[in-house]
Amino acid sequence: MAANREYTHLMLKEIHEQPQAMRETLAQESNRISDLAAEIRRRRVRFIIVAARGTSDNAATYARYLFGAVNGMVVAPAAPSLLTVYGSKMQIEDALVLGISQSGKATDVIEVLEVSRGLGAMTVALTNQDHSPICQAAEHVLLTHADEEKSVAATKTFTTALAALYLLSAYWAERQDLVDAIHQVPEAMEQAFDIEPWMASRTERYRYMEACTVLARGVNFATALEIGLKLAECCYVTPQPFSAADYMHGPIAALEPGWPVLLIAPGGPSIGSMLEVGEALKERKAEMIVFSDDDDALSLATVPMKLPYLGKSYWSPMVTAVAGQLFTYYLAIHKGLDPDRPRGLTKVTLTY
Amino acid sequence: MAANREYTHLMLKEIHEQPQAMRETLAQESNRISDLAAEIRRRRVRFIIVAARGTSDNAATYARYLFGAVNGMVVAPAAPSLLTVYGSKMQIEDALVLGISQSGKATDVIEVLEVSRGLGAMTVALTNQDHSPICQAAEHVLLTHADEEKSVAATKTFTTALAALYLLSAYWAERQDLVDAIHQVPEAMEQAFDIEPWMASRTERYRYMEACTVLARGVNFATALEIGLKLAECCYVTPQPFSAADYMHGPIAALEPGWPVLLIAPGGPSIGSMLEVGEALKERKAEMIVFSDDDDALSLATVPMKLPYLGKSYWSPMVTAVAGQLFTYYLAIHKGLDPDRPRGLTKVTLTY
Repeated sequence: MAANREYTHLMLKEIHEQPQAMRETLAQESNRISDLAAEIRRRRVRFIIVAARGTSDNAATYARYLFGAVNGMVVAPAAPSLLTVYGSKMQIEDALVLGISQSGKATDVIEVLEVSRGLGAMTVALTNQDHSPICQAAEHVLLTHADEEKSVAATKTFTTALAALYLLSAYWAERQDLVDAIHQVPEAMEQAFDIEPWMASRTERYRYMEACTVLARGVNFATALEIGLKLAECCYVTPQPFSAADYMHGPIAALEPGWPVLLIAPGGPSIGSMLEVGEALKERKAEMIVFSDDDDALSLATVPMKLPYLGKSYWSPMVTAVAGQLFTYYLAIHKGLDPDRPRGLTKVTLTY
Repeated sequence: MAANREYTHLMLKEIHEQPQAMRETLAQESNRISDLAAEIRRRRVRFIIVAARGTSDNAATYARYLFGAVNGMVVAPAAPSLLTVYGSKMQIEDALVLGISQSGKATDVIEVLEVSRGLGAMTVALTNQDHSPICQAAEHVLLTHADEEKSVAATKTFTTALAALYLLSAYWAERQDLVDAIHQVPEAMEQAFDIEPWMASRTERYRYMEACTVLARGVNFATALEIGLKLAECCYVTPQPFSAADYMHGPIAALEPGWPVLLIAPGGPSIGSMLEVGEALKERKAEMIVFSDDDDALSLATVPMKLPYLGKSYWSPMVTAVAGQLFTYYLAIHKGLDPDRPRGLTKVTLTY
């Protein structure tokens, strides 16, 4: 358990705090999110816009698949430059504009919320910092309860943000089955930690890996993007994240035998697609690192990363993300890097 | 002129056919696009969804910035897996769903159009192939007139698709000034060819370049993505395309001195952002290849690629794309590769 262990790095400590952060977020936010969902139904929202940067933007990708699949809602990325560079009069009076920033200080996300609110949109801020500037900018606030995140690499603020989005989607759709299901996540995360000794030893193989492809489809595409970002930040590995379908439409041409590809492929609606990609990659002799709870997917791997059963669920990205964080952490250690101090990065980026 | 020159490769020939393809598209499609714009206004479309893969998806990114800036319309990517993998009932009866496929045969784009039409959305196909399957799937058709494209790497079908989107946006907004302005493009493309001898010689420097970052902001972000895709397809260079604002929020941490960065930075609303990124890159001693008509931007370059004046326009991506195609072509030649025969790629990709 997190409480009884000494951690050499903040990042590893915070990775292990995730089941607890998840429990806190579910316990403290469920009622508020249920109320917000009712308000969204009253406002007859027609579509969603999400503004976010970095890790929060990967949470936005999760929102895109989740609200589409569960609520039939189209989710568009905000393109802040439309408001802040081009100064467009966007027609968004029937939109829900969601701004995500763990620190609550991302300047251009705040600006998108302020301008959108002025244009008549319903605005919601999702943040880990109550009373931060983003909470003033938006009409409504969704909080994650991950406590302070000290490591520069976001971990627990990412997975709790996914949980808040999941709850909003489930309550909005009045899907009690989905609301109930998310309570399996903290335990699934704890089971995922069982992979840690294996991960710590097998990542040594990638000591000199300079770049890799990261593939997923559907809700786990968000995880693929997030693992890619973590690898860039903590390991200085050049990531190429792709939706598996997009990857087959071109980039696979550049694949050399031995090229490392991370496949995020838990069971669920997209597993068929992922297995097809996996077969194509195997034929081309790619080095395949497969994160999955599906035996067929794992059997394609050069190095399998076996996850606990994830219920073919919409919440699986919260657990695949944990596995990806562990992979990143141990790879950074093998590379002799300090995962808590990525070169040239600070915790809050104020985008001009 | 294209007509009087012998070309060693189809790709180079087709790059040079672009001014003519552009003139044909503008001449033959303007009336039809004007009528379609009137129909869109009658239908009171509330937002846009674009379905596309590969190069066509980069045209979709152009649409996202263009329809936002000019029409105040939110543009969302289609996420075909929502319809084809998750089978969601999307609420899109007041949406315009635009499917883009040069061949008219992209299976999942066609499926998105068919399903969307069934859900009551207004559907438009943008293609270079009249009477292709996509034309049956959509209610309305926008044609590019680029003739047959024989090279696997899309060039003239990309820039003419941007032109069709530009015209639709301008007519929809009833902006005659924008409609008039696009007629400068064929000549600007011809002027951009003046860079060819310089490009042919300076690209030799990148003979052993294996990866690079490609940056832009606003409408030219589409060009950055497209140049990245061309480099992957024809040169087996691993591209990292980023919106300049996103790049500053994280990935810049991985920058090593000498790392190659292509900046697509023509004059216009986003030039201020691009100059700031350029200064930050210069400080970190990046190798900067700058495509621009702006002297300040060019002065930051390790290798400047000077473009003709692009009028700080929404059409500039059509010309920056030509310069990027030439860069890709000559780099492929220096690398000893055949740009007409990218390894493992075919002209039509049928995404499962």
